[in-house]
Amino acid sequence: MVKQERAARTRESLVRAAAEVFAEEGYETASIATISKRAGVSTGGLHFHFGSKAALGDAVVERAAESLRMITVSRIAGANSLQSLVDSTHDLVALLGRDAVVSAAFGLVAGNGARSAVGRERGWAVRRQWQRWVEAMFREAAAEGLLADAVSPRDAAAAVVAAIVGFEVLGADRREWSSRSSLTRYWNLMLPQLVARHRLGDVLAGGSAEPSPVRSARAS
Amino acid sequence: MVKQERAARTRESLVRAAAEVFAEEGYETASIATISKRAGVSTGGLHFHFGSKAALGDAVVERAAESLRMITVSRIAGANSLQSLVDSTHDLVALLGRDAVVSAAFGLVAGNGARSAVGRERGWAVRRQWQRWVEAMFREAAAEGLLADAVSPRDAAAAVVAAIVGFEVLGADRREWSSRSSLTRYWNLMLPQLVARHRLGDVLAGGSAEPSPVRSARAS
Repeated sequence: MVKQERAARTRESLVRAAAEVFAEEGYETASIATISKRAGVSTGGLHFHFGSKAALGDAVVERAAESLRMITVSRIAGANSLQSLVDSTHDLVALLGRDAVVSAAFGLVAGNGARSAVGRERGWAVRRQWQRWVEAMFREAAAEGLLADAVSPRDAAAAVVAAIVGFEVLGADRREWSSRSSLTRYWNLMLPQLVARHRLGDVLAGGSAEPSPVRSARAS
Repeated sequence: MVKQERAARTRESLVRAAAEVFAEEGYETASIATISKRAGVSTGGLHFHFGSKAALGDAVVERAAESLRMITVSRIAGANSLQSLVDSTHDLVALLGRDAVVSAAFGLVAGNGARSAVGRERGWAVRRQWQRWVEAMFREAAAEGLLADAVSPRDAAAAVVAAIVGFEVLGADRREWSSRSSLTRYWNLMLPQLVARHRLGDVLAGGSAEPSPVRSARAS
């Protein structure tokens, strides 16, 4: 039992170290030696848990997919679909800022350049999972009369997904792009177009878990 | 004179080969040997023109900056500011699809992972140039009464820049993201929000140089 716990902890530190090294050096450049050293695990130990760098890449993406599922299933009780969507974008951008594993998984598909086909495909799976959820929220909004009549759920989802990818990519180098206040300004611009006029008061651009002034000042 | 022309052609093929190899393998992984082989130039010849890989990276970014300037200065005579902006996004996405040099330069800043500080900074200069121009178009639109009253030129520019980066990144792997029809649907969604109500007919989502049905079918 203790042995199993130790094995799980070792895997965890290897995945985290791999994510950090992928983010810093790029997937192709990252070496097994650097990753095992960062994790404080021998290369033999690394190979015991993960047969290859591609397997580590898969584990990083799998962990990110899990975090993303957490964001999308943890809707605040009673929050409407579009509020849940706005909340999730705030959560996602905050998560990308503080979680190396998630940001590395998203990075595996952003940008061109050499990425293993495996890593890229798995990274795309994470993106598609998110995108499908965004579309589901817009369809739900349409069904509950929250979406403005003229708006197609599919087109709205594409516009939001593209913009969030942009905030993510631009924010990886310039933090002001992925700050809570940038995202709030984005939603303030978009919501009057997306939300049915008489329901506009039902969706808060800053998210329904609006942070206290102190947290807000620190986050932006 | 003939010698100068030959030198210019050699530089040109080196920059193009470097852009292709950066896009395929990533900047860090790309080797001088691969680039010179691709260009059909000896590594000695490469070093005569470019002292280092960073110098080649700079040349790629410089060439992209030039193409981007061409897009932004070649406004169709009489086109209003927002139409010029819409046109330029169609031109940019089409250019990224067919010009390895421009797409490599944008790729130098997209995604995390190791990029030379030099390449990244120069890549950012290209992005900032584009972003400033987008802001200038929105300010011009505000000045000429074309922008909807409630819209801040700065926030509108940020939303559009982020979305276009998203289309670019997503489109690098999935071409449907950067098709003319995706972008047209994006602008159809955004324009009613951005354009003053009585001027809505003055901006075409598909661009003012709307292609013939045949070209359109091929492009999307």
